[in-house]
Amino acid sequence: MASIKPLSDRVLVKPDLAEEKTSSGIIIPDTAKEKPQRGTIVAVGEGRYENGNKIAMALKEGDKVLYGKYAGTELTIDGDELLIMRESDILGILS
Amino acid sequence: MASIKPLSDRVLVKPDLAEEKTSSGIIIPDTAKEKPQRGTIVAVGEGRYENGNKIAMALKEGDKVLYGKYAGTELTIDGDELLIMRESDILGILS
Amino acid sequence: MASIKPLSDRVLVKPDLAEEKTSSGIIIPDTAKEKPQRGTIVAVGEGRYENGNKIAMALKEGDKVLYGKYAGTELTIDGDELLIMRESDILGILS
Amino acid sequence: MASIKPLSDRVLVKPDLAEEKTSSGIIIPDTAKEKPQRGTIVAVGEGRYENGNKIAMALKEGDKVLYGKYAGTELTIDGDELLIMRESDILGILS
Amino acid sequence: MASIKPLSDRVLVKPDLAEEKTSSGIIIPDTAKEKPQRGTIVAVGEGRYENGNKIAMALKEGDKVLYGKYAGTELTIDGDELLIMRESDILGILS
Amino acid sequence: MASIKPLSDRVLVKPDLAEEKTSSGIIIPDTAKEKPQRGTIVAVGEGRYENGNKIAMALKEGDKVLYGKYAGTELTIDGDELLIMRESDILGILS
Amino acid sequence: MASIKPLSDRVLVKPDLAEEKTSSGIIIPDTAKEKPQRGTIVAVGEGRYENGNKIAMALKEGDKVLYGKYAGTELTIDGDELLIMRESDILGILS
Repeated sequence: MASIKPLSDRVLVKPDLAEEKTSSGIIIPDTAKEKPQRGTIVAVGEGRYENGNKIAMALKEGDKVLYGKYAGTELTIDGDELLIMRESDILGILS
Repeated sequence: MASIKPLSDRVLVKPDLAEEKTSSGIIIPDTAKEKPQRGTIVAVGEGRYENGNKIAMALKEGDKVLYGKYAGTELTIDGDELLIMRESDILGILS
Repeated sequence: MASIKPLSDRVLVKPDLAEEKTSSGIIIPDTAKEKPQRGTIVAVGEGRYENGNKIAMALKEGDKVLYGKYAGTELTIDGDELLIMRESDILGILS
Repeated sequence: MASIKPLSDRVLVKPDLAEEKTSSGIIIPDTAKEKPQRGTIVAVGEGRYENGNKIAMALKEGDKVLYGKYAGTELTIDGDELLIMRESDILGILS
Repeated sequence: MASIKPLSDRVLVKPDLAEEKTSSGIIIPDTAKEKPQRGTIVAVGEGRYENGNKIAMALKEGDKVLYGKYAGTELTIDGDELLIMRESDILGILS
Repeated sequence: MASIKPLSDRVLVKPDLAEEKTSSGIIIPDTAKEKPQRGTIVAVGEGRYENGNKIAMALKEGDKVLYGKYAGTELTIDGDELLIMRESDILGILS
Repeated sequence: MASIKPLSDRVLVKPDLAEEKTSSGIIIPDTAKEKPQRGTIVAVGEGRYENGNKIAMALKEGDKVLYGKYAGTELTIDGDELLIMRESDILGILS
């Protein structure tokens, strides 16, 4: 099974299916407007440097997240449609 | 009940209803002009890094705040219309 | 009486009435040209961070100040027309 | 007599009269082209912060200076036409 | 045999042939859309400076990588079509 | 005799006469194209600050230098046509 | 013989003749497309400052290098057509 280790502070996200109603009651049906999208973190980078200081990642594999509508670059792995983006594109963690 | 933990220095804001006259006498009736909007902080991130130094949040859950008219991204949680934005979008704390 | 605590390095300014001739002889009658405006500091933030270092405010409540013509965001508190802006928008302190 | 204490690294400049021939022989008659302008420092700020370090002012009251043609904001104090600008707008000190 | 030592935080990449189906099952057939491209790291620079601190490279010769569609500058060495780009253009490491 | 002390990291340059053939054999006759210009350093500032650290000047009075075609601001002192510019506008020192 | 000492992190490059086939087999015949250009380092600056830290040069006189098609400023010394550019414009060192 192929996999990708995101570089620096990037994360790999598996987008939720658009109309899915989650047990936690969050529905984001309206993909027309600028509504944020939901997904799950599949892999995280090793973090970034800021002024020579290493800043660890705040996210981890399995986190349910919310991200900006146009964030990230699409890619396909083993038929899976995924997105790769910077951690700073992620708005928050769903629980 | 679903909830969102904002990432980094973001905050989750529940906007006040437009015409609400508050006990503290602040009315912002005129949503046409660039008047700032009022709302309540629902959740805060864990803070941001600056040059490798962690900067704590100045805001906390429950703060009544004023923010720029066009600040933040709209999202819906359990039917609640909320906004997620950076702490730097918040102008001040109402008391 | 409602009040606002400006966030970070912001200040709350009560603009002078346009044509007011002050005891100190400063008249800024001409609001047409790009002339700076006069006002009084009503409240100040707790200061800002620069590279992780906290920088205290140079201004305090009651200071008479001069600020750029288009600086700040208008807001109304208890019928008072005020402006909220960054300390860096203030040109100088009048005495 | 009214006065202004410039904020941060700003300076208050009293522009020379356009055609004045100085004892030191510097004439800048041609205000049409982008020629720099001459003036005298009337007041200086307390300096600026850079990365949390305080940087003192290089200029002081009374210095004869040269500054860019379009630098600064005009203001009037007790009928005096003055300019307020950043220290970095000043090209050099005349002697 | 000629070779190039990339400078600073640059890397030299040998792009995969467009339609190649890899043993690890990753196919990126569709070069029309903004899909990321695959390739192999041929050489890496000695790293970059950030605020005077040396930041080592995260990539090494032989890594299979994914990079942005329009990243890098084309060059030819001994008939080989290669790309030279910054490490920050690389999205992730394939395994 | 009037003089100017450039501020910060600025330098005062006396441009060479356009067609002058120097003993060192450098001719830059073609002022039409974007060719760099030659001149002599007349005065230097006291240096600049970077992140709160004072960076000394690399140039000194008398250096023969090469600078970008459109660098600097023109000014006249005692009938002398001079240019004032930042040290970073100077490409190199001629010898 | 005239010479130039590049300032800061600049380098002086003598471009290769366009069609030259080198012993190391690198040919960059096609100057039409955005192909990088080859040349030899003739002189290097003393390095640059970053946040007050001196960063030494990675290049030295005699290095064979590859640089961006439109990098640098043309100049003529003793009839030699040369280019002066920043070290960051150099893509890599050929060997």
